[in-house]
Amino acid sequence: MNIKQKLTWAFAIIACLPVVLVATLVVLNLRSDARDDFVDSSGREIRQVSNAMQLFFDGISQNVEYLATQPLIKNTDDSLKTYMSANAESIPQGEMDKKVFAFLQDLGNSHPAYAYAIVGTAAGGYVSWPDDPKLNNYDPRQRPWYKAAQAKPGKPLRTAAYYWAQDDATYVSTVRTIDNKLGSNGGVVSIDVTLKQLTEIVKQIKLGESGYLMLLENSGTGAGRSQAARAQLQAARQPRRGLRATGQGRQRAGGSRAQRRALHGQRLAVGATGLDVHRPDQTERRNEFGH
Amino acid sequence: MNIKQKLTWAFAIIACLPVVLVATLVVLNLRSDARDDFVDSSGREIRQVSNAMQLFFDGISQNVEYLATQPLIKNTDDSLKTYMSANAESIPQGEMDKKVFAFLQDLGNSHPAYAYAIVGTAAGGYVSWPDDPKLNNYDPRQRPWYKAAQAKPGKPLRTAAYYWAQDDATYVSTVRTIDNKLGSNGGVVSIDVTLKQLTEIVKQIKLGESGYLMLLENSGTGAGRSQAARAQLQAARQPRRGLRATGQGRQRAGGSRAQRRALHGQRLAVGATGLDVHRPDQTERRNEFGH
Repeated sequence: MNIKQKLTWAFAIIACLPVVLVATLVVLNLRSDARDDFVDSSGREIRQVSNAMQLFFDGISQNVEYLATQPLIKNTDDSLKTYMSANAESIPQGEMDKKVFAFLQDLGNSHPAYAYAIVGTAAGGYVSWPDDPKLNNYDPRQRPWYKAAQAKPGKPLRTAAYYWAQDDATYVSTVRTIDNKLGSNGGVVSIDVTLKQLTEIVKQIKLGESGYLMLLENSGTGAGRSQAARAQLQAARQPRRGLRATGQGRQRAGGSRAQRRALHGQRLAVGATGLDVHRPDQTERRNEFGH
Repeated sequence: MNIKQKLTWAFAIIACLPVVLVATLVVLNLRSDARDDFVDSSGREIRQVSNAMQLFFDGISQNVEYLATQPLIKNTDDSLKTYMSANAESIPQGEMDKKVFAFLQDLGNSHPAYAYAIVGTAAGGYVSWPDDPKLNNYDPRQRPWYKAAQAKPGKPLRTAAYYWAQDDATYVSTVRTIDNKLGSNGGVVSIDVTLKQLTEIVKQIKLGESGYLMLLENSGTGAGRSQAARAQLQAARQPRRGLRATGQGRQRAGGSRAQRRALHGQRLAVGATGLDVHRPDQTERRNEFGH
């Protein structure tokens, strides 16, 4: 190797080495920063979604509370029509039934998100808006929503989300016991809302380039966490319509791990609102919480 | 300059030049990326705040709509007590007044954000929850909230925000005309909500390290944009309690310009919900929209 070659190599190494070093440092820093920024900004966005849900469900709980204080509801007694017999459809509604129905109808008509507004009493009486003229062999006291309210009387609470195939929609019931002429906690009121508006919000959210937000049911019963985790995995494997927002592509830097962290953060954030949503098995939920 | 010196300089230049070039490129790119990311992530967060507000105000509009459909409200006639005389406080309330009051009270009690629920009629009758036993020389028909509803009858609409010094709180009224026994649009109902819950949400939002979110009134009357811009500047100059969320520090890269762009985006986003908020002059607003 002559002096010219030696010098050329020396120049080349001296020119390249700092660039490689600087580039490596910058790339490593950028990856880590991009991840942190992504988790941070996704977390902030998700916190606001959580706020929106809180406000949405607060409004419903407050109207359930309002319903429970209404004189008309507090005056319900054993004269409300029952649907326990097989020929229930041929029995006409009484005066009180009609008044309660008109009341529920007013409330329902002025709130587009409300799908059902229901009163059930300890005597088996039942008024539902919208009404089902063919209903029979039905005892509200045996229904999970009634039992759920009676298990924690005196305050509004949400039941698990249920999917209603006829409407292709997912609903959440907010229930509360009422004090009426049949006694303290002598009945239950329920307002069922469609989660359409919330799922629309969630659908619009894109986390990075391939991330998406899921609403997961924070099931209060037993194996909540692992059940939610299973639902998460299942939903991720089987993209279907409903409570999932899809995405495409890939996050620019360190996507998949950051997304997993973000999703974890989201689960906590959404959990904080007590939101009860994952996409449940249709028949199971319908049987469990559908009216 | 001998050959050793020449070589040393040559090596130094060759070592430094690429590093400087790479560093300059990286920094320029980073600044621009950081700005874009900041604007993007702030925009997404703000969009969710906007969603939350939409849900919040939707719930109120729906309850105003509900109020207007209630038989009790639709049955109001000229028997509602008026407060136009100077000795109004000595006149007792009638039966209908008491029923309407109880109704408004139920609604108000079950909704913590509701500060006032009010019915005013074309005959000058007035029922307000909570009531003011010392009220006199008061004609609801002359009040801006009544006129605002009558100007666009048949649908809920929001009046400008007003600051109520006694409560140290900012309120927004949602008003709607009612059809009653005095005729079509024979009265107005109003629900005034405190913006506390919304301002709490906005206060928690930090944009970058020194940015903050402001709720600005999207005043529908005339000089909306420039008025809002003036309010924005004024609020920025005079940090006071109320509708402003403060921040500290500085955004890491290209903060101030990006923040201004983000704030601009926010104004548009919040404008899209039709939110009517800036911090108004206390006396002026109180006179204009306070009941």
